[in-house]
Amino acid sequence: QTDGDRLWDTLAEMARIGPGVAGGNNRQALTDEDGQARRLFQSWCEAAGLSMAVDTMGNMFFRREGAEPELPPVYMGSHLDTQPTGGKYDGVLGVLGALEVARTLNDADIRTRHPIVVVNWTNEEGARFAPAMLASGVFAGLHEEAWAKERVDAKGKSFGEELRRIGWEGDEPVGLRPIHALFELHIEQGPILEDEGIDIGVVTHGQGLYWLEVTLTGRDTHTGSTPMLKRRNAGLGMARVTELVHAVAMSHQPHAVGAVGHVDVYPNSRNVVPGRVVFTVDIRSPDKVVLDDMRARIEAGIAEIAEELGLQSSVEEVGHFDPVAFDEGCVAAVRDAAGKLGYSHRDIVSGAGHDACWINRVAPTAMIFCPCVEGLSHNEAEEITKEWAKSGADVLFHAVVETAGI
Amino acid sequence: QTDGDRLWDTLAEMARIGPGVAGGNNRQALTDEDGQARRLFQSWCEAAGLSMAVDTMGNMFFRREGAEPELPPVYMGSHLDTQPTGGKYDGVLGVLGALEVARTLNDADIRTRHPIVVVNWTNEEGARFAPAMLASGVFAGLHEEAWAKERVDAKGKSFGEELRRIGWEGDEPVGLRPIHALFELHIEQGPILEDEGIDIGVVTHGQGLYWLEVTLTGRDTHTGSTPMLKRRNAGLGMARVTELVHAVAMSHQPHAVGAVGHVDVYPNSRNVVPGRVVFTVDIRSPDKVVLDDMRARIEAGIAEIAEELGLQSSVEEVGHFDPVAFDEGCVAAVRDAAGKLGYSHRDIVSGAGHDACWINRVAPTAMIFCPCVEGLSHNEAEEITKEWAKSGADVLFHAVVETAGI
Ligand SMILES: NC(=O)NCCC(=O)O
Ligand SMILES: NC(=O)NCCC(=O)O
Repeated sequence: QTDGDRLWDTLAEMARIGPGVAGGNNRQALTDEDGQARRLFQSWCEAAGLSMAVDTMGNMFFRREGAEPELPPVYMGSHLDTQPTGGKYDGVLGVLGALEVARTLNDADIRTRHPIVVVNWTNEEGARFAPAMLASGVFAGLHEEAWAKERVDAKGKSFGEELRRIGWEGDEPVGLRPIHALFELHIEQGPILEDEGIDIGVVTHGQGLYWLEVTLTGRDTHTGSTPMLKRRNAGLGMARVTELVHAVAMSHQPHAVGAVGHVDVYPNSRNVVPGRVVFTVDIRSPDKVVLDDMRARIEAGIAEIAEELGLQSSVEEVGHFDPVAFDEGCVAAVRDAAGKLGYSHRDIVSGAGHDACWINRVAPTAMIFCPCVEGLSHNEAEEITKEWAKSGADVLFHAVVETAGI
Repeated sequence: QTDGDRLWDTLAEMARIGPGVAGGNNRQALTDEDGQARRLFQSWCEAAGLSMAVDTMGNMFFRREGAEPELPPVYMGSHLDTQPTGGKYDGVLGVLGALEVARTLNDADIRTRHPIVVVNWTNEEGARFAPAMLASGVFAGLHEEAWAKERVDAKGKSFGEELRRIGWEGDEPVGLRPIHALFELHIEQGPILEDEGIDIGVVTHGQGLYWLEVTLTGRDTHTGSTPMLKRRNAGLGMARVTELVHAVAMSHQPHAVGAVGHVDVYPNSRNVVPGRVVFTVDIRSPDKVVLDDMRARIEAGIAEIAEELGLQSSVEEVGHFDPVAFDEGCVAAVRDAAGKLGYSHRDIVSGAGHDACWINRVAPTAMIFCPCVEGLSHNEAEEITKEWAKSGADVLFHAVVETAGI
């Protein structure tokens, strides 16, 4: 059994780095705060006897030697970066929960057959550098490393520059490590487990996703003196697309979600009809057919709305992944661990993308969810209980030890 | 007759101060550029033999003595400040057209009975410091001067601070000057005159307006993992209100306009359902009954939309004026001048608010419109022709001389 108090204190100490404005965290990828978090995490891992390797995407790997060092390791981990107004547990629980598993193995003096590796993936959130799960995506061969390093933030700084600036570009080539299996513990980020009073979500699938960036161009004109019938109102176009995205997702209930999250309006002045808007659409479904239907209907709808309002439109894909089915053996290991420990559990689909979704393409992978209060995430008020954190870490411990062998 | 070339050159020279990014101007109220424009304007007026007075709101008055100095002066002018992405003529034509009238009087050696005053009103646009027409509003007794000086820009700097910083807080008390009549020449900022091939708009009325600032508060949650039915999507609420404002204005065609111009979305991240939006509604009509009906329907609609989506809503009025009927005598002077000069003309309603709308409450006032290309204004591409500028200045000249007497 893991030490719930130790895990809780470790989470609290990490949360001091990059505090938010409302009790959460702003520790976006490759900021100074990210660098500071990495140094603290390194000191903890090294104190636990783990040895560090860092790859050229800044992914951090801490190895605990196995009885048979030549066997491929079992991995566990998640990410330490946060949203701009993020919570203290999204990602962080999976990394520090993995550290807690390693500490517990030390305390119990257990030597596993396979080596074990604790991992922190760079830039999971994608809030600063789109797309999300960038570095695990390069690891899994989905993106070219050079392309990934050219991703820029809103100020025009590139991933590559910023990774070097904070001093975390390692020298290990990306993606060549053998992986026997990978387990990622994460908060659900949705309300299902808490609503149903269940301790553990056994994640069988992940939703697929499209991120679309839409630009509508009309003409910025004076709100008072331009007759209604002479306008080309890009803001009205955005309103209609926002409603369309909602309606399309609603038409596939409960197998789809969708929303417009990021919005820029030009010139954004009280008495000027917006002449240009740039905004992002996020649509998801566990069913690829549904997902592609949503995208097609939204793209067709955007063209129609633009036509109606005299706007020009363009749609660019800025993120995409297909629905994921996790490895049956790894999923079974999680389900068995929860059962043996006496935790209530259910199978569940991940609404969010996770590093594990990418790694699943190159190695057997599964995820463990624990509840979070009111399903709130990507919000500084994100909360979990110490008990939930501990049950998640316990299940991680048993699934990993079972898979790594003793 | 005024000198069209001289007026055109004067407009071009002023446009060099505070250039925009696309051929227009960014010379917002009380910026360094505003200060520079004022000094240039002062030098021109003084060279034309006019004497300056500046009031404590920074309004600039240049007097040309009359044959009977004790008579109340006839005023003409507008504003030199611009939108952040504004044109070269909105306001500026009215100020420099008035200067051209004074220069023409000098050239023709005409001494009017009433003195004549060329005026530049501070902060007409309201883009930096809401509301619009702030200083003419204080002059006309609509706002308290102390309140006006506490208006802050987006960076928290106050009108009063900034007026002192650029050195244009005068010592004349605001609003005590006698005014025999006031004429404001302005570009139409709408497409009617150009569409109908008419030289001069005789402005009989001005639309009334409400500016409402709407805040909708829901909850920022993860777009991927929050089921559709568990969301409180403030962005969707904004979309519905944007559509409502449009529909309400459309229901009163052609006697109403309305749009959402300024939008802030929180946290404005690709994969976060917006938890809070703050946006402005601008609705206008020349008919007070229509205007109030629009406001009532929009406020009721906002409450309904908020209820439906589980949002909290609040609506704050950030600007208001009632429809204006200009002085019949002054309007007739404009109509007669256009007729005598052989310019085609029609009566027209002003879609935009103008300093003249406020001054009309305390003195007989009228406005002269000249066309602008495609009705485009509050846009750097705003354009007029030299001929339009000259016909406007000619009509201004004759209306003013007629009213001031010879
Ligand atoms: N878990 C998580 O928030 N990942 C970010 C990518 C996504 O929006 O799903
Ligand atoms: N003329 C003009 O653009 N005034 C600003 C106030 C308004 O929006 O009507």
